[in-house]
Amino acid sequence: MDDLRDHRLPLSRRRFTAAATTAALLTPAAAVPATAAPSKQTADWDTCLAVARALLLVDEDDRPLAPAYERYLTDGLPHAGAKARRVLVVGAGPAGLVAAWLLKRAGHKVTLIEANGNRVGGRIKTFRTGGHEQAAQPFADPRQYAEAGAMRIPGSHPLVMSLIDQLGVKRQPFHLQDVDGQGKPVNNSWLYVNGVRVRRSAYARSPRRVNRSFGVPRDLWDTPSATILRRALDPVRDEFSTVGADGKRVDKPLPERVRGWARVIQRFGDWSMYRFLTEEAGFDERTVDLVGTLENLTSRLPLSFVHSFISQSLISPDTVFWELVGGTASLPDALLEHVRDVLRTDRRATRIEYGRGVSVDTVSEGRDGTVVRERFTGDLAIVTVPFSGLRQVQISPLMSYGKRRAIAELHYDSATKVLLEFGRRWWEFSEDDWRRELDAVRPGLYEEYRAGKAPDDGSLLGAHPSVPSGHISDAQRAHYAATRWDTREQPEAAHVVGGGSVADNSNRFMIHPSHPVPGSQGGVLLASYSWADDASRWDSLPDDARYPHALRGLQQVYGQRVEVFYTGAGRTQSWLRDPYAYGEASVLLPGQHTELLAAIRTPEGPLHFAGDHTSVKPSWIEGAVESGVRAALEVHRAART
Amino acid sequence: MDDLRDHRLPLSRRRFTAAATTAALLTPAAAVPATAAPSKQTADWDTCLAVARALLLVDEDDRPLAPAYERYLTDGLPHAGAKARRVLVVGAGPAGLVAAWLLKRAGHKVTLIEANGNRVGGRIKTFRTGGHEQAAQPFADPRQYAEAGAMRIPGSHPLVMSLIDQLGVKRQPFHLQDVDGQGKPVNNSWLYVNGVRVRRSAYARSPRRVNRSFGVPRDLWDTPSATILRRALDPVRDEFSTVGADGKRVDKPLPERVRGWARVIQRFGDWSMYRFLTEEAGFDERTVDLVGTLENLTSRLPLSFVHSFISQSLISPDTVFWELVGGTASLPDALLEHVRDVLRTDRRATRIEYGRGVSVDTVSEGRDGTVVRERFTGDLAIVTVPFSGLRQVQISPLMSYGKRRAIAELHYDSATKVLLEFGRRWWEFSEDDWRRELDAVRPGLYEEYRAGKAPDDGSLLGAHPSVPSGHISDAQRAHYAATRWDTREQPEAAHVVGGGSVADNSNRFMIHPSHPVPGSQGGVLLASYSWADDASRWDSLPDDARYPHALRGLQQVYGQRVEVFYTGAGRTQSWLRDPYAYGEASVLLPGQHTELLAAIRTPEGPLHFAGDHTSVKPSWIEGAVESGVRAALEVHRAART
Repeated sequence: MDDLRDHRLPLSRRRFTAAATTAALLTPAAAVPATAAPSKQTADWDTCLAVARALLLVDEDDRPLAPAYERYLTDGLPHAGAKARRVLVVGAGPAGLVAAWLLKRAGHKVTLIEANGNRVGGRIKTFRTGGHEQAAQPFADPRQYAEAGAMRIPGSHPLVMSLIDQLGVKRQPFHLQDVDGQGKPVNNSWLYVNGVRVRRSAYARSPRRVNRSFGVPRDLWDTPSATILRRALDPVRDEFSTVGADGKRVDKPLPERVRGWARVIQRFGDWSMYRFLTEEAGFDERTVDLVGTLENLTSRLPLSFVHSFISQSLISPDTVFWELVGGTASLPDALLEHVRDVLRTDRRATRIEYGRGVSVDTVSEGRDGTVVRERFTGDLAIVTVPFSGLRQVQISPLMSYGKRRAIAELHYDSATKVLLEFGRRWWEFSEDDWRRELDAVRPGLYEEYRAGKAPDDGSLLGAHPSVPSGHISDAQRAHYAATRWDTREQPEAAHVVGGGSVADNSNRFMIHPSHPVPGSQGGVLLASYSWADDASRWDSLPDDARYPHALRGLQQVYGQRVEVFYTGAGRTQSWLRDPYAYGEASVLLPGQHTELLAAIRTPEGPLHFAGDHTSVKPSWIEGAVESGVRAALEVHRAART
Repeated sequence: MDDLRDHRLPLSRRRFTAAATTAALLTPAAAVPATAAPSKQTADWDTCLAVARALLLVDEDDRPLAPAYERYLTDGLPHAGAKARRVLVVGAGPAGLVAAWLLKRAGHKVTLIEANGNRVGGRIKTFRTGGHEQAAQPFADPRQYAEAGAMRIPGSHPLVMSLIDQLGVKRQPFHLQDVDGQGKPVNNSWLYVNGVRVRRSAYARSPRRVNRSFGVPRDLWDTPSATILRRALDPVRDEFSTVGADGKRVDKPLPERVRGWARVIQRFGDWSMYRFLTEEAGFDERTVDLVGTLENLTSRLPLSFVHSFISQSLISPDTVFWELVGGTASLPDALLEHVRDVLRTDRRATRIEYGRGVSVDTVSEGRDGTVVRERFTGDLAIVTVPFSGLRQVQISPLMSYGKRRAIAELHYDSATKVLLEFGRRWWEFSEDDWRRELDAVRPGLYEEYRAGKAPDDGSLLGAHPSVPSGHISDAQRAHYAATRWDTREQPEAAHVVGGGSVADNSNRFMIHPSHPVPGSQGGVLLASYSWADDASRWDSLPDDARYPHALRGLQQVYGQRVEVFYTGAGRTQSWLRDPYAYGEASVLLPGQHTELLAAIRTPEGPLHFAGDHTSVKPSWIEGAVESGVRAALEVHRAART
């Protein structure tokens, strides 16, 4: 019976609560009066503490691990010498790249196995000329690039920031909130919900019209959604932080911060965001809808409160975000330089056998139709495959019950992006810019659009001189015309740099590039960024069918006239439909933090596990890097024993 | 402000609870002590009653509507005469087919618009020769057929049963539980979990080995999962039914039954199944996992308790199920005969405008690459498009707040099937049959498999004489070999007809055909039927990559030897990836029954709404038929005013 197997990592010193709940089970449910208070306790204090420590990256004595991890990244692990081992690293995303690099520098014989035939980086993926695209050039302007995956890096993430600077990768600010031409925050992007269009700054000053459109109670008419949400979350944040004299939140010192997070996890670890907002915050359903729509909570309401709460705590207007010059893929590019000699691409792992050593069966899925099997062997392995993908990999002998359960049940979310290229960055235009550029298409066109009288049959798609001709087919024009929006009022120019708009149409979140691409007057707009159910609506459509819908959604928010700059080139990424990613990231279900985390990262004999899903920062590069360092350390230590 | 708009259907006489919850909101959440009892009440009694009435198909006075609905299906509506109207019906699934037929018989001028170019039926879809498949023949044996969608019809569903018999569609029993060669229930299919393989009947008698493999508390070692679940649900069922002298449940008489269901909805309407099992039933996490794995609850744990509870109440060993001879598509085939003259296929609705009348813009997405726009106009319309798909359809003017919110937020689930064809129905074999057939491949092969010594390189795929040669490529053999399972013990012959097995591998549920296809010795096995997260794991893979995984999962349960009968032909259906279905069905989130149902079915001016998602039986044909009759009645009545 392997379910009684001992776990070996600090995190796993968990007492399963079977004993505690046995009493409840002895009483048949039928005998429990309908009004009984819930007597449930699924997670014990030690488990909650372990999750909090993993989140805060501190050791069992609540000392920060980040400084040591940063040192390993900079200076390397001690050399293995005679204890060098053959190590297989499965998956060349950031976790695998970091682990392979550390172990190789330490003298181990590393083989890094990657399923993709044309790139490394995992869910760091930049659409760019000369990149992995089958077409050598993803956009009409060969200089343009855009992110399919990771696009913004919080300055508060120490390991990834340290890695970027160490590797000499150039970074520039990512404007979460839009700025004006001088870089001053203006927050002038659009909110477009319930048929009401208002700038974010105006909403923050005067939320009544939008709030009433959701039918929220009168007492909330004049409170912006972010404030409503903040008030609901503040009591939870009080567990681990305090409000300073300047009104900003400051983390409590360690170890009190750890205990505070553990209390949050124990109290709410098995709650959904929906339950928190309705039961704990006391929101009525209209307020849930207002906050969910504007603050991007709706699609994840049934998922873990703790997961969304961590993200909400991270992405705030105070956080400084960075992007990488040339695209986020610059980071895996730089890592690749250090491990290129040990990398094997186009090798998809299909079977893993372990015992005294490890063997990994792979198939080549190369484009030429021939299928090649290849087996790799080693003394130890680090498996970074997302558990959603590992579900289809045969691993024998059976791993522990906890691991198998985590692989079967860890929830992975959808996330989908639709990117559209434009010949000019029209979102940065003033009204004067619009007049000049539209009248350059044909005199009077500016006023035609203002009056809602420009043709809406798709004939003006890509009509601006900046757009190279011949990219837009008759079929595209017909599709655009068929999905056109009926209301043709023209809002004023957005006139912003960076930031983005939010709408209740299927586009949901639209994000403007923070910087021009040098040498290009155009830009690629993230026309739709969505999660969970919002993303599924796009995932049902084949790639080509998405672009007309995405442009129409943009037009609802910014007006019909943006069509003249559309180059006809778009790119889209559905992470759940990606055959190697199997989802955007693990976005946990209620209860999974305490039920699964220990088992997720526990080694199974010579198999070790890394990847963002083994951290408490899934979907963030930081979580992947943390896990890569941790797993490399584990393997390095195992090799020395 | 259209959010204050009156609703017009009985269901919608709902008092939004804003007023009731305002008091709670006046107290900032920060001031609520962490230990306060939840004071939430999101659904009032009238709303819960309305949901219960919709579920039970009774009117405002709790009188059953089914008899009248059956009469309309048989005898038609009264003739419209001079009140005949032009009616557009969008979508030719069962709801649209029924509504179009009823309205046409009543004298209305109906146009039925369907996006698919090659079939009607919606999520009733049979893979069959001469059907909609691009290949004229989906399987190696042209007589074989199998279901992509709806496959079993409960005898307890009055409208669909009446319709089937009225239309002269032939039906035969669907064996939810397997039977022996004489049709006697034996329940001998396999459970295969945690590496333990046991027949269902043996598990029911002696569950200890399987239960211990999940680590459930000692008190539950000897209780089968179905019994554990039943005990947890019985107190809920007591609200609307009683246990008779024979131990079987009997529904309480109306109207008490309605009030009982309303109590269930009020108490648990905003609970997830996870919350119910942990808080109300008091299960520890291991017991949740046991019951979830064997009773197919795991993948839907975060979704609505009420939704899964209704399904659990429906699919029990006591329920008689039926299938349609020639495939479930025989039902839309028969309906089509009555509406063929008003049907327009290959017309995908992209825009709807309504006011005094209705116009529907469509595009043809025909295979030849030309895109044709066509506009249809009418006085009234019935929209049966799933709300997940309607999310991408432009409807102007803006509909009511409630409708827009329902369209944006109603949760749709994934469901995925992988079907594999075999030259013989080996699951029906006895051990003697196996010896005869394997030794017909080559003498001694039977013993080779028994000893785990047959080659595992894919060379025996389709090796049996019943399999036409030339279907299996070298690439297929390499893929199968690469995903082979390590453990090669050979269990005894399944030797069952119908029913199916359950495993904790990615296949999850395997379903044997209940009947041979006349003239064929082969059979198509539903090798994997999965929902939600279980289905997403398949949806990440392209179609062709699924078959090796599905066969390997079958081999884990039934042994390697089944490979000799594999014809190399498979079919798979991911409903969430279907560009016209946009999901398997609406599977509601906690709270959505009471928050959204009224708005889902409320007409918007001349627009009426049908489809299974407008019923409380989503995913069931019965729900679609109910809704088709209801919407036809609405339109017919609207035409007369």
